[in-house]
Amino acid sequence: MPAPQNLNIVPFVSVENMMDLVLSIGVETFLLELCTYVEEDFARWESFDKTPRVASHSHDGVIELMPTSDGNLYGFKYVNGHPKNTKSGRQTVTAFGMLAEVESGYPVLLTEMTILTALRTAATSAVAAKHLASKGARTMAIIGNGAQSEFQAFAFKALLGVDHLRLYDIDPTATERCRKNLEAFGFKIDTCRSAENAMEGVQIVTTATADKQCATILTDNMVGPGIHINAVGGDCPGKTEVHRDILLRSEIFVEYPPQTRIEGEIQQLPAEHPVRELWKVITGVDAGRVAETQITLFDSVGFATEDFSALRYVRDKLSASSSFQNLDLLADPDEPRDLFGMLIRHQARMAAAPI
Amino acid sequence: MPAPQNLNIVPFVSVENMMDLVLSIGVETFLLELCTYVEEDFARWESFDKTPRVASHSHDGVIELMPTSDGNLYGFKYVNGHPKNTKSGRQTVTAFGMLAEVESGYPVLLTEMTILTALRTAATSAVAAKHLASKGARTMAIIGNGAQSEFQAFAFKALLGVDHLRLYDIDPTATERCRKNLEAFGFKIDTCRSAENAMEGVQIVTTATADKQCATILTDNMVGPGIHINAVGGDCPGKTEVHRDILLRSEIFVEYPPQTRIEGEIQQLPAEHPVRELWKVITGVDAGRVAETQITLFDSVGFATEDFSALRYVRDKLSASSSFQNLDLLADPDEPRDLFGMLIRHQARMAAAPI
Repeated sequence: MPAPQNLNIVPFVSVENMMDLVLSIGVETFLLELCTYVEEDFARWESFDKTPRVASHSHDGVIELMPTSDGNLYGFKYVNGHPKNTKSGRQTVTAFGMLAEVESGYPVLLTEMTILTALRTAATSAVAAKHLASKGARTMAIIGNGAQSEFQAFAFKALLGVDHLRLYDIDPTATERCRKNLEAFGFKIDTCRSAENAMEGVQIVTTATADKQCATILTDNMVGPGIHINAVGGDCPGKTEVHRDILLRSEIFVEYPPQTRIEGEIQQLPAEHPVRELWKVITGVDAGRVAETQITLFDSVGFATEDFSALRYVRDKLSASSSFQNLDLLADPDEPRDLFGMLIRHQARMAAAPI
Repeated sequence: MPAPQNLNIVPFVSVENMMDLVLSIGVETFLLELCTYVEEDFARWESFDKTPRVASHSHDGVIELMPTSDGNLYGFKYVNGHPKNTKSGRQTVTAFGMLAEVESGYPVLLTEMTILTALRTAATSAVAAKHLASKGARTMAIIGNGAQSEFQAFAFKALLGVDHLRLYDIDPTATERCRKNLEAFGFKIDTCRSAENAMEGVQIVTTATADKQCATILTDNMVGPGIHINAVGGDCPGKTEVHRDILLRSEIFVEYPPQTRIEGEIQQLPAEHPVRELWKVITGVDAGRVAETQITLFDSVGFATEDFSALRYVRDKLSASSSFQNLDLLADPDEPRDLFGMLIRHQARMAAAPI
């Protein structure tokens, strides 16, 4: 059997390619389809090789590798978290990732994941809310109007029909920017003067603030019966957003308990506090929302399988897209064992090239 | 302070770029300089954040992530090992890696590492032999004449002046290819009919066979006093090359004991068998070779700090080279918190572009 051609090439999706891909598919369609992939992978949770992320902490932030595999494909994401980066004009979080065939170990996709992570986080929140929020919920508060806020809004609109937003941020310019970014897309948008004010009349609240500290964005009096809390911003040790008393009144749902106990809102609770796993709700093993008056809380920290779903989705989309470059990433000598010979022959070709 | 320009760009060294870089520097100079970086990093061993590699095993092979950091820079390598790959015209091992600033988490280099790993493995072997082989050793047997063999030969020539090689492989075509690849570079080369034959008159033996099994390439009678054994091929569980009796007669040197106990030749020995760490020899804490009649054995399995040294070296070389491409890897919105706005403005630019 002849060897496949171009074994050295790995498709690479740059930031510009990713924007082209998202816009050509359409943000809402992209999120809807991504929700399907995320939900599919949660539904086959037990087939994944799950390990906690591999973190390297420093004074200024954290660098993490998040690998997982379903036995056919292997994916990992490189992601950093550096709150002070904004001072030098950099992003707090940047990411890239890779998907490979388990059978050969050969990469099949390399891609930017800063934008893709924002999309997969929003898609995961929407999938969780589909199972946990009150039926017919159409009004959502978004507290924290930074980089994640618009993606959350679009995912909830695409999957659940949420079209009324109540925005609040301690920085009014962030709220204004979020409003302007969303105004052309069919939302009714209220900008609110306080978090309390933002909570009036909503069925869902998304908290997505950025400060790395135990802030209390939501206090107990602000959360009435029937609310679904989509807690996105509490995602590392020492960073939480929801008052402990609310946690005690809520049914709490998580992605991967060993990771959420360390990074999520539930780091405020004893290790034995009961939580439910999202994959069990999706597969029907556990109940989601059981009463209209119940408070549900999705304690989202982000897990490797969600990145895997996103990588898998992008790879599938590339077959009908030109939004990628071919990267000469893998050595492919004419004779597999002759790596050094490839080098020598390259030199001969260079010497023979016309000057 | 204005933000630095082009925050989205990460330099990428493709396979072709790497070949250009190595050839423009010269293979021997590249290896000599790389040896300096490898030795420097072993000398500051205690400043590294060391974790065992993160491995994902499957029926056909293994995929690994190898991260490490010195507090200023963070590096990791993706590497696979799939013995059956050669049947489909693929490499058994391919790799790529990345270097990032710890302070910001921003990547500063993405590079192919299939060729670079071969070079760093050879450089590490030469550095170890500098401290462990008999002074004035100029003759080396190479048993296993596959992809790693020529790199080993060049590194030992560059650093130690080894210029007489005795080659043996169970596959004579591999030996012939190795001989042809090396013949123009000033070596005296003997092709040998057996491993025993290859060992005649040598001061150093490099074992670098590829089969994933407990093979015994070197048996006890083949190793006389004063030999330095550079055991490169025993590098994963179930794969060894050197007979246990030789290990018992040798002073054994390793990179990182927790990893070598699992992957190296010493997986054949009890966990408490004494070994010496290379970094302690390099820093003078422990002795290297203490007698001309001693048998020394470097049980090389490859460690993340060596990849880090190689990444650091390549990055330093790029400042005076054009052997790289600029990769649009990181989202860099005009306003750090406005990731979604970047997407919207990209659409506006696309719409405004002339058709």
